[in-house]
Amino acid sequence: MNLTEDVLPRTLQHRLENDLILRAARRQPVERTPVWIMRQAGRYLPEYQKVRTHVDFLTLCKTPELASEVTIQPVDRLGVDAAIIFSDILVVPEAMGMNLAVDESKGPFFQSPLRSSADIERLHLPNVESIHGGLRFVPDAISLTKRNLQGRVPVIGFAGSPWTLAVYMIEGQTPATFRASKELIYNRPIDAYRLLEKLSQSVALFLTAQIEAGADLVQIFDTWGGILSPVAFREFSLRFIRDVIQRVRESSKRGDETPIILFAKGVHHSFEEIANSGIDVFSVDWTIDLGHVRASIGSRIALQGNLDPMVLHTSPEVIVAEVEKVLRSFGKGSGHIFNLGHGILPDTPVEHAKLLVDAVKEESRIFHGTGVHS
Amino acid sequence: MNLTEDVLPRTLQHRLENDLILRAARRQPVERTPVWIMRQAGRYLPEYQKVRTHVDFLTLCKTPELASEVTIQPVDRLGVDAAIIFSDILVVPEAMGMNLAVDESKGPFFQSPLRSSADIERLHLPNVESIHGGLRFVPDAISLTKRNLQGRVPVIGFAGSPWTLAVYMIEGQTPATFRASKELIYNRPIDAYRLLEKLSQSVALFLTAQIEAGADLVQIFDTWGGILSPVAFREFSLRFIRDVIQRVRESSKRGDETPIILFAKGVHHSFEEIANSGIDVFSVDWTIDLGHVRASIGSRIALQGNLDPMVLHTSPEVIVAEVEKVLRSFGKGSGHIFNLGHGILPDTPVEHAKLLVDAVKEESRIFHGTGVHS
Repeated sequence: MNLTEDVLPRTLQHRLENDLILRAARRQPVERTPVWIMRQAGRYLPEYQKVRTHVDFLTLCKTPELASEVTIQPVDRLGVDAAIIFSDILVVPEAMGMNLAVDESKGPFFQSPLRSSADIERLHLPNVESIHGGLRFVPDAISLTKRNLQGRVPVIGFAGSPWTLAVYMIEGQTPATFRASKELIYNRPIDAYRLLEKLSQSVALFLTAQIEAGADLVQIFDTWGGILSPVAFREFSLRFIRDVIQRVRESSKRGDETPIILFAKGVHHSFEEIANSGIDVFSVDWTIDLGHVRASIGSRIALQGNLDPMVLHTSPEVIVAEVEKVLRSFGKGSGHIFNLGHGILPDTPVEHAKLLVDAVKEESRIFHGTGVHS
Repeated sequence: MNLTEDVLPRTLQHRLENDLILRAARRQPVERTPVWIMRQAGRYLPEYQKVRTHVDFLTLCKTPELASEVTIQPVDRLGVDAAIIFSDILVVPEAMGMNLAVDESKGPFFQSPLRSSADIERLHLPNVESIHGGLRFVPDAISLTKRNLQGRVPVIGFAGSPWTLAVYMIEGQTPATFRASKELIYNRPIDAYRLLEKLSQSVALFLTAQIEAGADLVQIFDTWGGILSPVAFREFSLRFIRDVIQRVRESSKRGDETPIILFAKGVHHSFEEIANSGIDVFSVDWTIDLGHVRASIGSRIALQGNLDPMVLHTSPEVIVAEVEKVLRSFGKGSGHIFNLGHGILPDTPVEHAKLLVDAVKEESRIFHGTGVHS
């Protein structure tokens, strides 16, 4: 059964009860600041851990019924304003021909990282419609989640940026020094471009399939753009993000209308270039002052973020105070989606995550001076 | 024998043959851009490795004759424009009462990190004049190095910033998540202030002793300021750096006149505050565009940096091209000290480090349009 086309034709989509994130992404008025949490479906949730006792990480990613179940868990538990589909950015390189494995303590990794030009040449574009060896499980999980949520909150699809995927494909796993990645771009730029071009085509196909399956927003994660010099970031990361966005925009009317969020860590040097990349929302890490970046590009795009995830390890009083600081740093008016400045840490107390969501809802209503409940 | 006072009275100091770094630090005219390399005395040098076959790391730090020997090695081998004293930032907490150990693969660490308020209370100010249990070995090594160099190049003293030292004292060693450090500042700010105040007094005493012993410049390393939010950086790191600087400036005429360099990684958000902190030179990491920071604060302080250390793992052609990019990003005029954007990596080929120094000397003369050899 093709969930994407048969179960959820466009005309049967549930009207969204809560579209705060969509409005904030478009810088339209909101009653309060919407909030979700990067990696909100995951290890810190007991109900996620329970599902994981029966199934390994990759099987969970690749089984739409289960992926949808854990995707919805934080909506039920925390009351977040969006569901982000449970998946992993590394499923794309796997569907391009790489061998993905999982180390239970360190997460997914590649047993045979890219080494030669031939390794890069061998990579193929992913088949986003195929169940076996393709990426169909993600659009299917999105369609199913849309159906299961019945319009409660929007669903966010996502992918890694070409550069960030390339780093994992070259290094094998989370790198310490990024030596192999930097050697590739500095010593073999032709190979680097070839790889990044293939990746931008692949990521665009994947995001388009997620949008066609019903994703209301999509987010691109550029976790490793910030390890580059400003010049190298623009040349090897942002350039290909722009390429992905253009391809998605040109893919269909829905591709053109779906808000795109870019999370990029440590790229304080390129606000202007990011604002011009075609994205709708820039998701910033906790080392960036929201007010500063808003003053610079906030009239053109919305912002997402940016509480230090470690604050969720402190006390209720500190969490509320730090939430207020983030709200104040953005200031009054729309165009802000509250989030952490990076993914939630695995050992975060669930009650602190819940407190964060409640605090944003309550404090932002007070801060924006609206008594209206949404 | 008190090397500081007896061997090197102020009046007998050698006149500097090469004072390019001092002039650049004061934004005075230079014939070419001066260059040195953070961690230039260290593991990548075969002559350093040779010394280390006979002596362990801490004994090397604490034996002025040997510390001076490895301090001068890169001046001989690479032709850098300054010698930075061989030492480790963690000798300060050790002299405050902590137990410093060395793991040969990971470097120095504390076996009993600070846990309680009582742990912080027990810390005492270091004795900078005592050989046993104090820090006298560093000023002694500086005096000896001044004598051995006979004015060939200036000598740089250094210390960790209060915040960066606090991180190591709380975490024990290089941290992965900085959880304990952030829990301290968010959950127990009074303890954090007490610790940082003790550290700023200690660091100021230590830097003053180095200046009195003959250091021509001093550098403060704030490696971990950038893991904080902008507000937390200013409150828990920069504030105490400012305190250190004020104490050093007030300590003596020489303390007031000696250029102070601040290396701070990832603090792109606080240029203005850094320029107002009392430092002379801001040493920036490779993710910051030199031209951008110069346009913002370059009329008030000099800049140091900022080649990505990983570039030294590429090819001669790439190294020369990237050196040119850094020179161009700073632009014409004085006020630039060339350096890496972080410490040189342990497995860097020596010939690439030498090439870097030669390239800066040659290219900067061409770039600045001077044919004069200095």
